[in-house]
This record gives sequence, C-alpha cells and structure tokens, in this order.
Amino acid sequence: MLANLQEHLYKTLPFLKEKKLLVAVSGGIDSIVLLELLKQLNYNISIAHCNFSLRGIESDGDEQFIRDYAHKNNIEIFVTRFDTMHFATDNKLSIQIAARKLRYVWFSQLLEENNLDYLLTAHHLDDSIETFLINFIRGTGLEGLTGIPQQNDRVIRPLLPFTRSEIEMYAKVNNILWREDSSNASDKYLRNKLRHDVVPVLKSLNPAFADSFLQTIANLQQSQSLVNDAAILVYQQLVSEHEGQKHINIEQLKRLPNYKAYLYQWLNAFGFTAWNDIYDLLEAQSGKQVLSANYRLLKNREVLLLEALKPLDKEVYEIGEGVTEINKPFTIKLEMVNEISTYSTKKVIFVNNNLIKFPLFVRKWQEGDYFYPLGMNGQKKKVSKYFKDEKMSLSEKENTWLLCSENQVVWIVGKRADERFKTKDTTNQIVKIEVL
Amino acid sequence: MLANLQEHLYKTLPFLKEKKLLVAVSGGIDSIVLLELLKQLNYNISIAHCNFSLRGIESDGDEQFIRDYAHKNNIEIFVTRFDTMHFATDNKLSIQIAARKLRYVWFSQLLEENNLDYLLTAHHLDDSIETFLINFIRGTGLEGLTGIPQQNDRVIRPLLPFTRSEIEMYAKVNNILWREDSSNASDKYLRNKLRHDVVPVLKSLNPAFADSFLQTIANLQQSQSLVNDAAILVYQQLVSEHEGQKHINIEQLKRLPNYKAYLYQWLNAFGFTAWNDIYDLLEAQSGKQVLSANYRLLKNREVLLLEALKPLDKEVYEIGEGVTEINKPFTIKLEMVNEISTYSTKKVIFVNNNLIKFPLFVRKWQEGDYFYPLGMNGQKKKVSKYFKDEKMSLSEKENTWLLCSENQVVWIVGKRADERFKTKDTTNQIVKIEVL
Repeated sequence: MLANLQEHLYKTLPFLKEKKLLVAVSGGIDSIVLLELLKQLNYNISIAHCNFSLRGIESDGDEQFIRDYAHKNNIEIFVTRFDTMHFATDNKLSIQIAARKLRYVWFSQLLEENNLDYLLTAHHLDDSIETFLINFIRGTGLEGLTGIPQQNDRVIRPLLPFTRSEIEMYAKVNNILWREDSSNASDKYLRNKLRHDVVPVLKSLNPAFADSFLQTIANLQQSQSLVNDAAILVYQQLVSEHEGQKHINIEQLKRLPNYKAYLYQWLNAFGFTAWNDIYDLLEAQSGKQVLSANYRLLKNREVLLLEALKPLDKEVYEIGEGVTEINKPFTIKLEMVNEISTYSTKKVIFVNNNLIKFPLFVRKWQEGDYFYPLGMNGQKKKVSKYFKDEKMSLSEKENTWLLCSENQVVWIVGKRADERFKTKDTTNQIVKIEVL
Repeated sequence: MLANLQEHLYKTLPFLKEKKLLVAVSGGIDSIVLLELLKQLNYNISIAHCNFSLRGIESDGDEQFIRDYAHKNNIEIFVTRFDTMHFATDNKLSIQIAARKLRYVWFSQLLEENNLDYLLTAHHLDDSIETFLINFIRGTGLEGLTGIPQQNDRVIRPLLPFTRSEIEMYAKVNNILWREDSSNASDKYLRNKLRHDVVPVLKSLNPAFADSFLQTIANLQQSQSLVNDAAILVYQQLVSEHEGQKHINIEQLKRLPNYKAYLYQWLNAFGFTAWNDIYDLLEAQSGKQVLSANYRLLKNREVLLLEALKPLDKEVYEIGEGVTEINKPFTIKLEMVNEISTYSTKKVIFVNNNLIKFPLFVRKWQEGDYFYPLGMNGQKKKVSKYFKDEKMSLSEKENTWLLCSENQVVWIVGKRADERFKTKDTTNQIVKIEVL
C-alpha cells in the first residue's frame, strides 16, 4: 500500500515527469507527503506557499518550516502573504472563499510568469467525500455531488484516489515531519464533525466504501455530462438568437414534461434565482418579466425573450502606440520595463514589444476566436473551447474581454495570456500591461 | 405542525377524496398514523396487511392488532400470509427483496380485483434519507440518489414530505397506539445505524436539513430526466434499427467525449455489465463481441450491432373459443366462473365474456398499441407510454406480452388489465384468465 502512492503517481500521470510542476504546500501532512513523493521521483518541482496571516505566529511558523524544507532540499520556493481578513471584508466574502480566491489567482500568475506547466494540490479522497457530504447537507444539485475534480486545465490532484489514512501511514513509515494543516479554516468545524462522526460510520458499514465512492462520483460525472448535452441539444431545437436576444419558443417548451429543468439549466448561468416567477411567466400576460442582476427574461407573445439589461458592448477600444493608459471599458495601463517583476495581487502580463502591433484592440470575444494558451507548448485552442474547459457560465463569457494585436489574441484579460507574445530571456523590449 | 399532516394530505392530494384507496398497513407507527389521518378525513379506505410469517407469534400479533383496528373502525380489510422464507430461498432472493416482491404483486392484484384506485404507503422523509444513504454507501448512480418517489402510477406516499419525528409527535399528541414496525427487516441493522448514528449528525449540522434534502432530490430528479432525454436524443442521431437489430455508428459515437456514458445508458437496460470489454470493442477487430444474458453486442465493421441472442418472437398465438389452456409462449388457462375470487400469488384477471371475441391473440406489443388501463376512469393510454411511466427497461418491454381481442388489448399480461373488458356486478359470464 505504501509503495502504491509512488507507483500510482508514476504510472497514472507519466506526463508529469517531463513537466515543470508547482506544488501548493500549506505545510500540512497532505502537501508535505505529496512533496516528498515528487521529490523521490526526481520530478521538476517548485513550491508555492501562501501565508494567509490568519493565525499570527503559527502562520509564520508554517512559512518558516516550508522555507527551511525548500532550502534544505534545494527546491525553488515562492511565498506570498495575504491580508486575507481585509480582502474578505472588503469584498464581502467568507474567509474561506477569500483565501481560495487569493490563492488560485496567485497560483495561476505563478504558472504563467514562470512558465510552469501544472499546479499540483494535495487534496485526497477524504477531502472529496467531505466535500460531497458538506454539499449534500447544505442542499445541492448534481454538480455538487461530483466530488473534487482530479484535473482541470492546469490543476492536478495526484492524491485524490488515496484516503487520509493511507497518506498518514505513508508519513509514519517514512518518518515525515509536518505542521498542522491550516487550510479550510472556516469550514473546519463542519469537516471535523464529518471526519470524526460520520465518515467512519459510513466506512464501517461498507469496508469498500472508498472504492464505492470513487465509482459513484465517476457515475455522477457521466450523468452530469449527459445533462449538459441535453441542455444544449434541446436549446438548439427551441431557442433562436436574434441580435443578442434569445427567443425561447413557449409552446414547444411546454410540450416537454421536464421543461422546468431546461429553463433552470439555461437560465441559471444568467444569475436568475426566482424560479417560481420564471415558471409562472409561461402562463403570464405578454409584457411580464423577471429580472436577474444583469438580464431580463420577458414574456413576449409566444416567446420568452432573454436579453442583457444593458446592451452588450459591441464597441472596440483602441490603444494607440505610446498610450500609457485607457479607461474604457476599464482601466488598462501600459509601461515599458526592463525586467519582469512578480506580483501577487494585480492582474498583469508582460509581452514582447517587438511582436505586438499598435494600435492594440480591446474587444469582446467572437465565435471563431482562437489563441495559443501560455504554457501549453504552443497548442492552438479555440477561445470558446477554453471557456468551456474553464466551466465559465454564459454570463462570465459575455463579460470577458480580449486584448488583441491586429486580430491575434494577446490576452484573455484577467484569465490567460497567449504563448506567441511572451517574453524570452533575450527580449529587450518588454511591455507590462496591467488591469486595474 | 400537527395539523400540518392532515392539512397537507387534504390540500396536496385533493383528488384522493374521490378515490378508493388501499392503505398498506404493517401495524407500525407510520402506517397507523397514515390510517388515522385518512380516517379522520373520511376518505374511502381499505386496509391491506401482509403477514410475512417471519417473526412467528409477533407477526400474528401484528395481524390481530390490525384486524381488531379494522373491525372497530368498520374498515374493509384484506390480509394475506406469505411463506416469505420459502419464496426467498426458492427464488434466490434476499428476504427483503422477496418480501417486497410478494407484497407489491399482491397489492397490485388487490387494486385491480377490487377496483381500487391507489395504493397508499406510509414511507416518510427519513425513509427516503436512509435509502439515499444506503445507496450512497453501497455505491450507486444518479438514479440511486433520487430518493423514494412520491408517486408512481398507482402508488402514492402521502407522508413523504414529513420526518419521522413529526409523525411520532402526531402519534403522541393523538394518543395513537401502534406495534413495532417489522418492515425492512433485513436491512434493519443498516437503517438503524444510519438512523441513530448518522442522520442526527447531518441534522445537527444543518437545522433545515430535511428541507435541503427534499430540494436536493428534486434537483437530482430533474437532472435524471435530462439524462434520459440526452440518451434518447443522441440515440436517435447515432443508432439505426434494422429488423430487430440496432446499429450504433462507431465513428460518430467516438466523436462524443462522453461516449462511454451513452453506451452505459443504452446498454444497461439489456443486462450488460462488462463495461470495459464493451469500451474495448470500439477498437477491436470486426467480429469480436460481448454478451449479456439475452443480448449480443457485436463489432461489425463500422457499427456496434446489438441483437437478441434468440430472435425476438414475431409469432402470434391464438386461443380459440372453448380452449381452456395453451402452453405457448407460456401457459395460459381459461375458465368460466360464477364469481370473482381473490388470489394472492397467481397472475390472474377476470373479464366479461360477452365483451371479448374469440380467438384471443397473444402477441408482443407493437408501436401504436394503446389500451384503457383498469382503474383510470376510462382514460386511453399508449402502451409505450405505460411502459415509460412504469420505468420498464427495453428488455422488460421486449419480454412483455399482450392478450388481445381482435386488435384490442385485454391485458398487458402480468401487468395491467384493460378497463373495457372488466366485469360488473351484472356480468353473468365471467372468464378467469390465469398465467402460470
């Protein structure tokens, strides 16, 4: 069982061997075991550690522990410090969500800026079981029961098939030292309760529970993919698009016994929540409407008409040569710099000035746009495919801007830079582009 | 909260008032509370009690308790006794499955023979939560997480939105007497463990857990309906039918990223279980095949060819006037009788001899067949719709026979009789038709 972890890593993720990996390390047993495994396999790793400044001297102790580990083992390390409490208050977020947001934005910047291929996190099977149960207890839908994903885009979770006790056993046998894990601080009570009082009972009732759970969530993921297919196939049949408006044919819709489920699938992404009002709209007078934050659903004779409250930007904004700042559609600053510096909270990219052509354009994405995502070995990808892989909702897609050089995508703003314009060691003209 | 149960019954199921109801009563608190509620609403009820002979004198005590209750309250009662242990052993079933099978066959016969409209059972919200958790622990798919259904065809579960403690409270306040519930005997250990050690923790972690659970399973039922739609829509695109064979286009199939999920949805109903072998078939040499009990899936050049191992019956069997028994496709006996007697284990219907025309025909169902299900107020229904509502798998459908008079369906054999041929009080020529 102990060799299993190493074997599993080596066999199921062989492509990792060739890649530059960034390991998210809190200092807890899970991330330290992951680190040890990767080290023993001689993989090319760097460490990323976030100090969330949530537990004072203890947080600093974690940071020091990991710095020492990196130094002793000669591993590159990135450390950042967040004022999580402040950020959470400012943005009206829970501590947990705030920490996650800060963490993943920074990880993603580290990947891009240092040309690293994948972020590895140490989530394991019990984390996934607990996440399933937390969602179940709070009330959820199919997606909330599909577990923590093993891999999406550039994040891989190699320990996901292993239980907490398998990881503990490995740590024990290999005399591995760790610090108490401080992640998931705010739902710690809930997780601890499940960990100690619920999951052990489930495991005692079925000794093969861990395997059953893996099979169950695999089944549910398959079902989720069919749900998505049905939503798209029926959308194609019942919805027509007219200049940014979507027209849902009411008569055809009502013929479906499960039309409510389709309305939910289609409209959820636009921020609607008043489902009963929406269902009532089918029988309402022409002219009645239901609003979400940014969209209107209007009963208009024989269709439900969906449109953005403020008409979608069709504008294109130019950034002329020598311009250092524009303020529409949002603030973008440009600056010539001599070297690449790293940032942990700003949205920024560095591009090779010799490769871009002014004026640059800022515009919404269009069907047919493609780019070469940074860090994907020059692979070409449709922007729409990228959105899909990122599981972006329709409204997120519609609120995403592209920075373009002629018609080439330089940056999916705030998301992903393009490989073609990146700087090299030899680049002598670097433009720093920053979004405020 | 106490008035709630009665109010809920009255408001959410108003149509029950006009109907003849059969209440499944074990003698436990749940079924006695349901019975009391219905009695107080002056609904038209009969009692059905099964004595499973599993706990000797205790089972007999339950039976006597219910007989006394029925007598005292002047309610019609049907009682049957099963040799459950024997039936389970003979049919290699678990006690629990055997009891359920015996019970529901009998209930369904009682409904038909006595012209009752609905069977009511006393399942409640905690039963549904426990069923969810049992399936989850054992490993399941989406369908296993959709809870106990509130209603299907002729079974209604009026207490399903209420928790065990709400029912207990009602029983206490109304001084209701009951016997310890003996149902679910064989998974009692599992249920008890969940009831005492798991569900209370979940409820303590979310005081509104019961409501969340109801919302979650409603969401999952919606998702399940979209999964079914996707399976059908994509089937229509990729599968063609040729004289009982189904041809799945491999090239088109492989273009779907989730093609395995589709193969599962399509083939599960035909009894296939060797999923990895099936997935390998896509890349295998022409001529390779995978078998289920009754079907073959054959790689045949560019298609996967699905066909029954023994060719499907296209035969039609005749029952001439005066014939009392035929033995193909199975044994059917006919007998003229003077009155309707009840049976608890045989498959039997009674029809009005003046309304049927000999020869009768026994044949498989065909697209376009319809009938008037007994007890549905003369409503017409497509046989295919009936199959769908009964959630019958494709193989179940294909193994279902119809007994017809000319081209009118007299009986979906073993399932449901037709309203048109039923006997009335004035019927003087009754044919008893029995399947062995």
